[in-house]
Amino acid sequence: MTDSFQRNLAYKRNGEISDVSLFPEGMNRVALGLEYNGSLFHGFQSQVSGIATVQQTLESALTSICNEPIALVCAGRTDTGVHATNQIVHFDTHARRAEKAWLRGANAKIDDGVSIRWAQVVSPLFHSRFSARARTYRYIIYNTRTPSALMKNLVTWDRRHFNLDDMIEGSRYLIGEHNFNAFRGADCQAKTSIRRMDAITINKMGDFIVIEVKATAFLYHMVRNIVGVLASVAAGDRPPSWVGSVLASEDRRCGGVTAPAAGLYLVKVEYDASFALPTCPKGPYIIAGLLNPQAAVASPQPVKSQRPPKTTD
Amino acid sequence: MTDSFQRNLAYKRNGEISDVSLFPEGMNRVALGLEYNGSLFHGFQSQVSGIATVQQTLESALTSICNEPIALVCAGRTDTGVHATNQIVHFDTHARRAEKAWLRGANAKIDDGVSIRWAQVVSPLFHSRFSARARTYRYIIYNTRTPSALMKNLVTWDRRHFNLDDMIEGSRYLIGEHNFNAFRGADCQAKTSIRRMDAITINKMGDFIVIEVKATAFLYHMVRNIVGVLASVAAGDRPPSWVGSVLASEDRRCGGVTAPAAGLYLVKVEYDASFALPTCPKGPYIIAGLLNPQAAVASPQPVKSQRPPKTTD
Repeated sequence: MTDSFQRNLAYKRNGEISDVSLFPEGMNRVALGLEYNGSLFHGFQSQVSGIATVQQTLESALTSICNEPIALVCAGRTDTGVHATNQIVHFDTHARRAEKAWLRGANAKIDDGVSIRWAQVVSPLFHSRFSARARTYRYIIYNTRTPSALMKNLVTWDRRHFNLDDMIEGSRYLIGEHNFNAFRGADCQAKTSIRRMDAITINKMGDFIVIEVKATAFLYHMVRNIVGVLASVAAGDRPPSWVGSVLASEDRRCGGVTAPAAGLYLVKVEYDASFALPTCPKGPYIIAGLLNPQAAVASPQPVKSQRPPKTTD
Repeated sequence: MTDSFQRNLAYKRNGEISDVSLFPEGMNRVALGLEYNGSLFHGFQSQVSGIATVQQTLESALTSICNEPIALVCAGRTDTGVHATNQIVHFDTHARRAEKAWLRGANAKIDDGVSIRWAQVVSPLFHSRFSARARTYRYIIYNTRTPSALMKNLVTWDRRHFNLDDMIEGSRYLIGEHNFNAFRGADCQAKTSIRRMDAITINKMGDFIVIEVKATAFLYHMVRNIVGVLASVAAGDRPPSWVGSVLASEDRRCGGVTAPAAGLYLVKVEYDASFALPTCPKGPYIIAGLLNPQAAVASPQPVKSQRPPKTTD
């Protein structure tokens, strides 16, 4: 049986493997954990025009390392400007490399805006997209009177006074299984707009408001549209019940503004524990210490060099 | 007495005022607190070539707001790539504006890499550079096996294993008044290389090593050269006593490598309390929660929208 014939039998939609016994001999499925600065890319997915995308820079680096064409599949196709602290991707290759070689080799070749945090050979049955059981995004609003030069493109600056109790009350309408048609972007290509929202957690920490949403899967622009609606409620433009009205309308025209991409991060993708993937803190670092103060100070080593006492000479 | 004649009497070196009574009538001295991303500029100070500097972008914005030429003086002339969370500058102008107008007007006009955090009319006797009693810098090393895409240019990534006890022991040789000639950069134009180091604080927090140095004033490249030497000690390349040897040599050729600019931040400038300047946390935000976990969680509002119980219909 030729390799290409075997591949045809084994591979289904988007590189999914139907049966481990059909996985081409000598082939390895490798999963990677990625961090990237979305402001430097036109989204994750390669585009015909060849403009800079995360997929394109990473496939190009891996192709050169593996000496064979590499095609990546990702857990969540983030849009232009959207960041990731823990995007998960996988690819198949005949190349065998130690983890160190994947990390060092690829990190040296890819653009500065992407870094590979870990690499692991996984079961052929693992699929970064189809095996994902839940995805978590965090949206970060920097809520101060002046913008931050250092966090430009890494947070969304909003000077308005926000009532978080109202925001939290509004968010409760979205929990559970609903038709989220009113919250999907115009270009959304999903067949159904039914999604199950598992949790929305809203934290006010220092100068930041962090909105964390967890669902099995999201529609195009869904998180940013939810944040836009919740922000209008928190700013007092609309009552919390308006979130329920927008949801019930199932009509995008009833929603609010789409929140900017800059504040959005893909922070976690969950898989069956049997795949034994490494995990990293959700992040991003800007709020790491704020959200997990206990973890952050678990092993501090603060020591101060005191000025020596003055001698009398 | 003409305005220009009066100015000649009043102004001394670098815009310093000798006597309040000679300060030109109708003139205001305005101080600003600045945050900037040094990786987007060729240092603070304007250069003849006209390339992008913090001073040039800010003077240009203020000149347009004030309708008169504005000349800025800063507390610390940071080099290319060096950031600031609390740079202090001042300028003189006949224009009178409310603080909001300074903040909104200038922040709207300056490049994204700079933001004005506060603005305040100050005494003519205030001078951002000459009135400064102490300057504090923080150097941030991201000490993990893989680099961070999101913090590129905002931290210095170093994968080496660092012994912080050795680093701290080495840092003690630098405390007090010394000739820091071995730690100054080749282009340093200071007349004397005697400086008094008040404190060096080294913290290991999560994945970060934060080296904080406080002195009345610093020489050109002094902090980065100190960090380079301390890193060599922490990495085990040299014993802690080597720091003392480098210092005693008073010879730059005896030092180590200059640490990269990316990890360095001007975080605090101290003045006499009588000037009553606003203060902001030292930052940067990347480590804000890690360094001040108590402050960070002073007013948390974590609330989770639970998934509603399933109904039986």
